[in-house]
Amino acid sequence: MTAPELQAFLSSDFPQAAHFVVEAVTDTGVTVRRPVQEADLRPGGTVQGPTMFGLADVGAYLAILSRIGPVVLAVTTNASIDFMRKPAAEADLLAEVRLLKLGRALAVCDALISSDGVVAPVARASLTYSIPPKR
Amino acid sequence: MTAPELQAFLSSDFPQAAHFVVEAVTDTGVTVRRPVQEADLRPGGTVQGPTMFGLADVGAYLAILSRIGPVVLAVTTNASIDFMRKPAAEADLLAEVRLLKLGRALAVCDALISSDGVVAPVARASLTYSIPPKR
Amino acid sequence: MTAPELQAFLSSDFPQAAHFVVEAVTDTGVTVRRPVQEADLRPGGTVQGPTMFGLADVGAYLAILSRIGPVVLAVTTNASIDFMRKPAAEADLLAEVRLLKLGRALAVCDALISSDGVVAPVARASLTYSIPPKR
Amino acid sequence: MTAPELQAFLSSDFPQAAHFVVEAVTDTGVTVRRPVQEADLRPGGTVQGPTMFGLADVGAYLAILSRIGPVVLAVTTNASIDFMRKPAAEADLLAEVRLLKLGRALAVCDALISSDGVVAPVARASLTYSIPPKR
Repeated sequence: MTAPELQAFLSSDFPQAAHFVVEAVTDTGVTVRRPVQEADLRPGGTVQGPTMFGLADVGAYLAILSRIGPVVLAVTTNASIDFMRKPAAEADLLAEVRLLKLGRALAVCDALISSDGVVAPVARASLTYSIPPKR
Repeated sequence: MTAPELQAFLSSDFPQAAHFVVEAVTDTGVTVRRPVQEADLRPGGTVQGPTMFGLADVGAYLAILSRIGPVVLAVTTNASIDFMRKPAAEADLLAEVRLLKLGRALAVCDALISSDGVVAPVARASLTYSIPPKR
Repeated sequence: MTAPELQAFLSSDFPQAAHFVVEAVTDTGVTVRRPVQEADLRPGGTVQGPTMFGLADVGAYLAILSRIGPVVLAVTTNASIDFMRKPAAEADLLAEVRLLKLGRALAVCDALISSDGVVAPVARASLTYSIPPKR
Repeated sequence: MTAPELQAFLSSDFPQAAHFVVEAVTDTGVTVRRPVQEADLRPGGTVQGPTMFGLADVGAYLAILSRIGPVVLAVTTNASIDFMRKPAAEADLLAEVRLLKLGRALAVCDALISSDGVVAPVARASLTYSIPPKR
């Protein structure tokens, strides 16, 4: 699937992530932008962990769909995330997602998350998805 | 801190988690209830991953505070989560959190998350918090 | 499989773990003992990380086999481990392994590892195994 | 530290890893080679998990030392590893390690592990090290 196709898929099938922006489908995965909203902020002017987790999770899902098409029922089975630096409160989050393995039953991705305009990443994550067997 | 003290702390200092219910401070950690809301649901009638992640994260934080008092600036540095079963859409989530290590700089917790009324857990998580040095 | 059956399986099919001792098959999993050898030690009188990782890995495998019988081809797909305290150099390691999920394709375990005779655990681990489909 | 300096450090201070080869110190971390030995093999002609874990662990340690010098007492606090493909039994393992964060107290690395001569990686890992404070 192309970036516009993934974007259309989010709108139609995954409305709670409709504000995510599919920036690009890359050689190794996808780049996804997550606008930061008031509800994502923590006291002290930073972005809460679940927002970064959610970006990594949706990004991995989109990386998989970009290769196999709209398989709605793929589910996350494992995620590991390191929070490394405080994200900027006033910047979007960007995730560079790599699809490291795409097997018949399992797919593995990693993601490097940064605040738009800042080089040093704020978090890294790795995720495993279970892909349902084809009928 | 006691369960009522932790609950009061959530209301005053952590309003985005004010709907979490501190059920008990236990010998090994805490038990926390997370009412499931419309916004937490995914198509197919299940609870989204970031909601479970957020419960594990807040639960670990409360387990640490129950032992060291209201240290606002403790931050999550690492989390690993396994999603094992589909949570029920119409049930609260419960987290049994164990504080496995409480060091000067780092604390480690694990959490077993289940849907209220169902024995088999829906997720497990382990989390590391960094605790700021005392002045 | 019973503890003696698992022990016999290690001897016959998994000789590199033949020195592991299956202490018990429990209600929730297994208890496994790992004698610490000269080659496991690090400077400073402690046990190296790969030894603890290997114990968690073999322990999870045995917990799965205790329920489904000798499935040689189950493989680890993910492991996450927190090293919490320095193990004693002169004590065996003990792993309490819980089988948290046993699905058709994936099994999830966690393990609490301690030095024999010391209450506070030295490490915790969680592991996912992929179980090959039955013919 | 340069690659030859790291290699000399392994020989003098870390003899159990003296057979690891520091191939290069890179812009983002290090490249490390681990010759595979008879004792590393599993039935079925593959390399055991603890060997890959050990390579990721030593590789992360060397990536940190390459930037801060020979700090013997840095210790691993967390590791997460995904085993994605079966390594070749007759090939060395190579780890490309990136140092993603180097803080005062914590460092975070990730590693992509492959069998020499094969493009698709066999494993990915992420690791956190605790760095002791300077006197």
